[in-house]
Amino acid sequence: MNPRLVIKTISTLLLLISLFMLVPMFIAFYYGESDALNSFLIVIIATAFISLATFLYVKKPANNSMSTRDGFLFVSLSWIFVALVGSLPFYISGSIPSFTNAYFETISGFTTTGASILTNIEVMPRSMLFWRSLTHWLGGMGIVVLTVAILPVLGIGGLQLIRAEAPGPTVDKITPRIKETAKLLWLVYLGFTVAETILLMFGGLDLFDALTHTFGTLATGGFSTKNASVGHFNSAYTDAVITLFMVLAGINFTLHYRMLTGKFSPLKRDTEFKAYIAIFVAATLITTFNLYGDYYSSLGESLQYASFQCASILTTTGYATTDFEKWPFLSQAVLFILMFVGGCSGSTGGGIKVIRIVTLLKQGFNEMKYLLHPRGIFTLRLSGYPVKKDIVYSISGFFFLYIFMLLIMTLIVSTSGQDILTSFTSSLATVGNIGPGFGRIGPAENYAFYPDYVKWALSFAMLVGRLELYTVLILFTPRFWKI
Amino acid sequence: MNPRLVIKTISTLLLLISLFMLVPMFIAFYYGESDALNSFLIVIIATAFISLATFLYVKKPANNSMSTRDGFLFVSLSWIFVALVGSLPFYISGSIPSFTNAYFETISGFTTTGASILTNIEVMPRSMLFWRSLTHWLGGMGIVVLTVAILPVLGIGGLQLIRAEAPGPTVDKITPRIKETAKLLWLVYLGFTVAETILLMFGGLDLFDALTHTFGTLATGGFSTKNASVGHFNSAYTDAVITLFMVLAGINFTLHYRMLTGKFSPLKRDTEFKAYIAIFVAATLITTFNLYGDYYSSLGESLQYASFQCASILTTTGYATTDFEKWPFLSQAVLFILMFVGGCSGSTGGGIKVIRIVTLLKQGFNEMKYLLHPRGIFTLRLSGYPVKKDIVYSISGFFFLYIFMLLIMTLIVSTSGQDILTSFTSSLATVGNIGPGFGRIGPAENYAFYPDYVKWALSFAMLVGRLELYTVLILFTPRFWKI
Repeated sequence: MNPRLVIKTISTLLLLISLFMLVPMFIAFYYGESDALNSFLIVIIATAFISLATFLYVKKPANNSMSTRDGFLFVSLSWIFVALVGSLPFYISGSIPSFTNAYFETISGFTTTGASILTNIEVMPRSMLFWRSLTHWLGGMGIVVLTVAILPVLGIGGLQLIRAEAPGPTVDKITPRIKETAKLLWLVYLGFTVAETILLMFGGLDLFDALTHTFGTLATGGFSTKNASVGHFNSAYTDAVITLFMVLAGINFTLHYRMLTGKFSPLKRDTEFKAYIAIFVAATLITTFNLYGDYYSSLGESLQYASFQCASILTTTGYATTDFEKWPFLSQAVLFILMFVGGCSGSTGGGIKVIRIVTLLKQGFNEMKYLLHPRGIFTLRLSGYPVKKDIVYSISGFFFLYIFMLLIMTLIVSTSGQDILTSFTSSLATVGNIGPGFGRIGPAENYAFYPDYVKWALSFAMLVGRLELYTVLILFTPRFWKI
Repeated sequence: MNPRLVIKTISTLLLLISLFMLVPMFIAFYYGESDALNSFLIVIIATAFISLATFLYVKKPANNSMSTRDGFLFVSLSWIFVALVGSLPFYISGSIPSFTNAYFETISGFTTTGASILTNIEVMPRSMLFWRSLTHWLGGMGIVVLTVAILPVLGIGGLQLIRAEAPGPTVDKITPRIKETAKLLWLVYLGFTVAETILLMFGGLDLFDALTHTFGTLATGGFSTKNASVGHFNSAYTDAVITLFMVLAGINFTLHYRMLTGKFSPLKRDTEFKAYIAIFVAATLITTFNLYGDYYSSLGESLQYASFQCASILTTTGYATTDFEKWPFLSQAVLFILMFVGGCSGSTGGGIKVIRIVTLLKQGFNEMKYLLHPRGIFTLRLSGYPVKKDIVYSISGFFFLYIFMLLIMTLIVSTSGQDILTSFTSSLATVGNIGPGFGRIGPAENYAFYPDYVKWALSFAMLVGRLELYTVLILFTPRFWKI
């Protein structure tokens, strides 16, 4: 272990996060929000001071290599501390008077969950709303993927970090050099940000609303600056733009990069991409026809609301254009099932991820082949390539732990006196980084009513879900701490 | 494939089932239930006639060997046809006027699910109630395990049938000869039946109630002859006896046989048994302390109701002594989680089974070890023995298909306009062969309100769940039908 390096790297990261606060600080200044202005200033100065102190007083690490173990510790701790620093402006300014609430809101932001404790969003200072949405954007592409472009300055390759960040099956290397990869992915992300912002402004949103909703979309986050979420704008055009970008955000970003460079063949071959689109289309079709007639009088309107909501839940964004808890139950069941899926690996989406679902389904069918031909050899293939047994092994462990985690969280939430549906979907919506669920945490409701200990438990669930379980849970195994 | 042999074997089985109808026929005669008497008589004669015709007109099979393929087909078809023949007395006598309802009730009986469409159980003729409970008892130990002792007459070994019957990880061979094994297990089952019946009669139940409730207990079925289920007797003694035998019925029967022959060491070593008891004790403790105080004034009473209900749900029996939907939500959440577990392999219990849960949990932790030591070798052990990777592979496929099946069934049920909780737990309670769930199918309710197509879908779910998914689902793969 190399604790000094971990500490120094985290303090660099915190410094970077505090620099991003300069943007909402400027907004606070512009709108004359003095409490907000002061709180951002305090946090930036304090963070800079602590970072400086860390660099001065923590001895230089013996070497610049991070072991896998350091990687896990660094990734988990960095998210915990980033959310801590990020929550301070809310708390200090009094915008969110309870520290528990401030932390919950911030980790919900950085993990791109979008579960909120705010009961009236629109009374918040604009600078705070901007910061809240910015946490999505920063968290979205992965604070750590960001630092991969910074870490090389410290002389660290960082491949092991990517591994810890996304233990999912696909960390496709676009270029052999990890630093290059990170930069290219950021460029795609930035490009999408500019594109969506402009498109939303064409639809009549001002720069502030366009930017904040772009942050929430591309990070598959779900924080809105409006109480009625995206439903506030009540525009088919805006809904369509956000639907499109939610779907894009749920696709593996390495595929985007390839498409932008004119390579479409990987797209046609990619099993996960095809399954993701198929699930989205199927869910949208069922929901559209279920809503048409009794709920919406026109097919176009049904399609508008159905596609938006299916994209929002499948990609784990959590935006809403209507209260889907009032929809017919078949449509609700479709959304409930989508909550178990999530986006593609290498996207900003959360959940179990499409590639895991596809792999396990193929594995299930493979088992039947073995029952019929016990001595046969049936290779599991994804995108045309054979999948190693060890990967299927790892995915199956992940899937079980995911369901196990859902049930344990359900138990914890239920101790606060919530019914089964609310408890179970609170768990599903936080572990899966979705945001809204069913029961008392529907799209028209929020997480404010939970007692503090449940909010902390759910904050933990969001973190564990975002870091794909193993990264955090491994810290709780005695073996991790054996030297 | 050997279709003639499959047909002949099934017709033998149906003949056997119709012979068991002689018992309720005698009861109908005794109580003067003439409609019931006639209907049993008609079914017995018709079945005998058809069986005879099959034996006369279907040519002698070319050989007496059943392939694995034949085994799967035989097991699935035998359950479907047995339920068909079993449902006829209900339908012909007019006790259950709808054929769909009669079939649903019967397959619920044979699969030991215990989900009922009866809105008033106590108005049914006694002979019909007895037959209803007897379907549990016959289904419990497995119609096919029974036929394993009969099949040798036809010159068939039957090992492949046991495999198809229970593709679960443990088909522990007590004796090398399968026929002997089946006989010994039946002896244990019979012994328990006699013991529980006598103990229940000590508690004041008449022979009829004692026998029918013993059938429901040992098969982990859940059909009662009373509208209030076991709660009707309102006796701590009766509750305790049934709790004990539910727990016993959820244990692998080969362990029982070994215990009865004085061998206790396998018990101490058996991972599944220890986990099963641990889960039961933990669930009971949480529930007892949650109920104590606000819900029941004495700790003894809390323990009585808590242990009964935890045993009932964990073992997938489904008996109730109270309406647990009125319990505090923590206790409800405990029961909800138990619905995902089920009994031990080789027991009469349904669900995912404890051994699969334990294996996958160990697999999840093993993955973390590999993340820390990618080149290490970590063997997964159960009961001290290393588990082959292929078995873990198979279990992980099973677990995913189980969850997948739950979600697909949820979607189908929701089309009938049921809320998420009702739809999801209807699915959980039928695939897991439990019986009651939450929402509109709670312990004080029933499945009568569902439209026919949902009842057929749930009948299918019960069958698929009982035959451990693969056995039935494999028939839907094109590969199965390739010659």
